[in-house]
Amino acid sequence: MKPEEVKWKCTMAHDTSANTNHEHGQQVLRVWLRLLSCTTLIENQVSSRLRSEFDTTLPRFDLMAQLARFPEGLFMGELSQRLMVSNGNITGITDNLERDGLVERIMLPEDRRARKVRLTEKGHAAFEQMASTHETWIESWIGGLNDHEQRQLYELLGKLKRNIQT
Amino acid sequence: MKPEEVKWKCTMAHDTSANTNHEHGQQVLRVWLRLLSCTTLIENQVSSRLRSEFDTTLPRFDLMAQLARFPEGLFMGELSQRLMVSNGNITGITDNLERDGLVERIMLPEDRRARKVRLTEKGHAAFEQMASTHETWIESWIGGLNDHEQRQLYELLGKLKRNIQT
Repeated sequence: MKPEEVKWKCTMAHDTSANTNHEHGQQVLRVWLRLLSCTTLIENQVSSRLRSEFDTTLPRFDLMAQLARFPEGLFMGELSQRLMVSNGNITGITDNLERDGLVERIMLPEDRRARKVRLTEKGHAAFEQMASTHETWIESWIGGLNDHEQRQLYELLGKLKRNIQT
Repeated sequence: MKPEEVKWKCTMAHDTSANTNHEHGQQVLRVWLRLLSCTTLIENQVSSRLRSEFDTTLPRFDLMAQLARFPEGLFMGELSQRLMVSNGNITGITDNLERDGLVERIMLPEDRRARKVRLTEKGHAAFEQMASTHETWIESWIGGLNDHEQRQLYELLGKLKRNIQT
């Protein structure tokens, strides 16, 4: 298993009944564990389908997805920040994608020492195909909720997100 | 960064507007990205607080949490399955926890070749303290939703989870 593929499925582990003495605490932990479990299930599915259908990994897909949003390219530091992983990881995956002709490092005319990374034409085409298939996967899971439920879930998660960020 | 700490914050990356041609597809992707983003924000917070307050990592915490549920211990294969990571990762973290006196490998009377891993007394005490603090963190985020919202979120995620698993 390459480092870029090491992913720890965190905190699936808790026994809510052991961790808490009061019912309210149990409820928040149950909500959190279910949230984590849905995310992990989807990530695992996406990861395994990316591998079997496109012979690629989630980190590669995510890096390409970022680049697809910035046709003019991104600095390594920007990529690292956006993907919330270390520069070292980004470098390895970028090297790997560059070898496959999917991304390229470009020199900036205004600063010959600086390099940006961007998708090649081949990379763009490959990403578009993956992204469109990826969307059908997500649709097959989230689409099981009706429109009202999707909106409700979106709103509740929005409120949760604001709580975490403040 | 040790392998056990490498964690790729996956699929944060999508530009929903670029990946889709129709409004419904946009909505399911938005729901998914918000779900992912909430989980990632919480995981990052938990991970960084475990480090600063308990000088430990999320993988160590999760492994201990599993063992806390099984006082008689677990086989490595069981741990690996429960934590959804490879045996190799589990071995490294177990070695590490054993060195710190928090877990022990025990021989089974019925099969002298088999080993189970279980928490030591010190490990139990350490885990209880972390778990209780961890619960207050989760409470501070999820508890920002009122009781009704928490139940709603729990139900919606339950429906989603069933969709993914079928």
